[in-house]
Amino acid sequence: MSYLAKVRELNPLVHNITNIVVANFSANGLLALGASPFMADAREEVADVAAMSGAVVLNIGTLNEQAISSMILAGQSANTHGVPLVLDPVGAGATAYRSEVTQKLVQSMQLTALRGNVAEVANVAGESWASKGVDAGAGEGDVLALAKKAAQKLGCVVIVTGREDVITDGSRTFVASNGHPVLTKVTGTGCLLSAVTGAFLAASEGAWLEAAAEAISFYGVAAEIAAERTEGQGPGAFQIEFLNQLSAVTPEIYSQRSQLKQLNH
Amino acid sequence: MSYLAKVRELNPLVHNITNIVVANFSANGLLALGASPFMADAREEVADVAAMSGAVVLNIGTLNEQAISSMILAGQSANTHGVPLVLDPVGAGATAYRSEVTQKLVQSMQLTALRGNVAEVANVAGESWASKGVDAGAGEGDVLALAKKAAQKLGCVVIVTGREDVITDGSRTFVASNGHPVLTKVTGTGCLLSAVTGAFLAASEGAWLEAAAEAISFYGVAAEIAAERTEGQGPGAFQIEFLNQLSAVTPEIYSQRSQLKQLNH
Amino acid sequence: MSYLAKVRELNPLVHNITNIVVANFSANGLLALGASPFMADAREEVADVAAMSGAVVLNIGTLNEQAISSMILAGQSANTHGVPLVLDPVGAGATAYRSEVTQKLVQSMQLTALRGNVAEVANVAGESWASKGVDAGAGEGDVLALAKKAAQKLGCVVIVTGREDVITDGSRTFVASNGHPVLTKVTGTGCLLSAVTGAFLAASEGAWLEAAAEAISFYGVAAEIAAERTEGQGPGAFQIEFLNQLSAVTPEIYSQRSQLKQLNH
Repeated sequence: MSYLAKVRELNPLVHNITNIVVANFSANGLLALGASPFMADAREEVADVAAMSGAVVLNIGTLNEQAISSMILAGQSANTHGVPLVLDPVGAGATAYRSEVTQKLVQSMQLTALRGNVAEVANVAGESWASKGVDAGAGEGDVLALAKKAAQKLGCVVIVTGREDVITDGSRTFVASNGHPVLTKVTGTGCLLSAVTGAFLAASEGAWLEAAAEAISFYGVAAEIAAERTEGQGPGAFQIEFLNQLSAVTPEIYSQRSQLKQLNH
Repeated sequence: MSYLAKVRELNPLVHNITNIVVANFSANGLLALGASPFMADAREEVADVAAMSGAVVLNIGTLNEQAISSMILAGQSANTHGVPLVLDPVGAGATAYRSEVTQKLVQSMQLTALRGNVAEVANVAGESWASKGVDAGAGEGDVLALAKKAAQKLGCVVIVTGREDVITDGSRTFVASNGHPVLTKVTGTGCLLSAVTGAFLAASEGAWLEAAAEAISFYGVAAEIAAERTEGQGPGAFQIEFLNQLSAVTPEIYSQRSQLKQLNH
Repeated sequence: MSYLAKVRELNPLVHNITNIVVANFSANGLLALGASPFMADAREEVADVAAMSGAVVLNIGTLNEQAISSMILAGQSANTHGVPLVLDPVGAGATAYRSEVTQKLVQSMQLTALRGNVAEVANVAGESWASKGVDAGAGEGDVLALAKKAAQKLGCVVIVTGREDVITDGSRTFVASNGHPVLTKVTGTGCLLSAVTGAFLAASEGAWLEAAAEAISFYGVAAEIAAERTEGQGPGAFQIEFLNQLSAVTPEIYSQRSQLKQLNH
């Protein structure tokens, strides 16, 4: 599979309804990758923009009433027009309001993919989650089970990012092991990952799970290379080099470095 | 003409009503250039801010009802106080809503300059536009004719940016040939160009056409140098070096590299 | 005192209600420092977010009605829960609206610290201020007197940043002399400083004045080193290296370079 090559060939339009913190970084990341961002959140136009896009990506990073109704309009338009739809439930569970909004969103539309950390995904899926602490083995097992259950409940691809990333549609599951801890030192890297996932879905012709898995693994490869090139410099330098690598990583480089494996169970 | 030197001498206040995607980049670009950005969009204060500014720049990148009424208040205040006014009709024509909003804006105020790509300018001017494909010669001829017609209709300087940039007041016309394709890989480079045009207009004492032409050409020179210095690195590195060059390009460097010609017809 | 070490040990949650221009830079600066930014401005959740945070930072850079009522809710929640509260009155005095809003904010809540330039602080404190021009000696004397008076009136730590920075609680006063003029060429460096002050307050266990003084001095040290490392390059390069240094400056480096002195009077 090389959905990366397809993204660069098609330059898909990716409609983002996102927040004031990461809008610039998300747009620049999509441009670097080879996609075409369309950032639009006015109620009057989001349905039109969603309908003409290759993917719609909703991000609840900073919320307000207008944004929520725009997200519902855009999501429903994406559903009507067969456009893949990604939700990034930033901070779901951190406040009651974010949990409520997230429930309202998932009940109003059919997601193609949900991307969050384990606490966010558990909240969206209505599953209780308590960190298992340092016992990574058991913890990872739980993440796998949680991700599958969430995928089955929501009827979509679920992506749980963390030290390792899990991508599952509830029956088939991939685990991606690229990436770098410095990603957690740059704001919006999770949000941009959701947007990049949207771009890959737009280029996938319906192979949602495979395209999502490649998106996550590609992103990790770009981060690893950027981290190597800026070692000892800091998160500012990493952020810029990461944008460079989103552009520079070819399908060949990706294939050489990707650590993506499909699980047998 | 060296409006660049004047901008750096006067540090004009440039009032921007812009969007969540490019607000940071626009402010940083204006600061690097030597202007003073004032980002304010509350209805309660935009008329006051516009009145005290050297230029007002309106950008419809991400719209909402409050932003539109603020833009009208700011634009009318600029008109009342003789402050030059720039409109960047981001995505005009892409959705019905953006086309409507743009018409509402141009009917509510008198622009000093309009800056967009050919599709946006055609939409604002109410002209039909169909890309001429790869036949660049014919295409450019059409762009010139369209730009002039738009300038005559709107009674302002029209700037159509693309592979070459056209700057016209409807009778006299400049063509600027600097710039670099990597500009299209960084979000907000068009928006910042509109803001930079505002800064040059603020320092022009009414020589709108000449100041706008120099702004466009200066911007292209800074982009070229930044692209040379970051060749092979990527859009992240370019973005940062471009901010450096907006500060570093002197009137002398500008004169040596500028490819700006006035047409005879 | 090493509040810097404490910030990095505790990774305090810093709740920011800020603006579209600086939200990204503020979040990245806090992450680089070692704090955890939470950017949330919806009325429905700001009280909850403030209550769980180590500090709340309000910034009036771009205003609207929702943001103001959210700021009041967050500020009052911070007061109720004993969470330190910082206000950055961006542009107070520049428009009547900003002055009114600022008064409304300071009358609705008890600040822990106010951070602004001399004109902003004078406006908030209801003191007249006229620049003394180049007579720096007299000017500085006035700044000290103004800062103390503002601190006494508002009952909080007042930080006036400029060529030198004054930090006072109305009786005890520090002057910080690190920093670099290139800070004025990057948007949001004042706003981020207010956010960084919030992070230090969160790690101070109530030693507000000392923690604020160290925050200001630390920030100046990081800026100096970043300016040295990017000398001759420009504000783009500085901005990135500054993020690096917010992460790289250790308590040891800080101690060697900090020029922070407590005044005897």
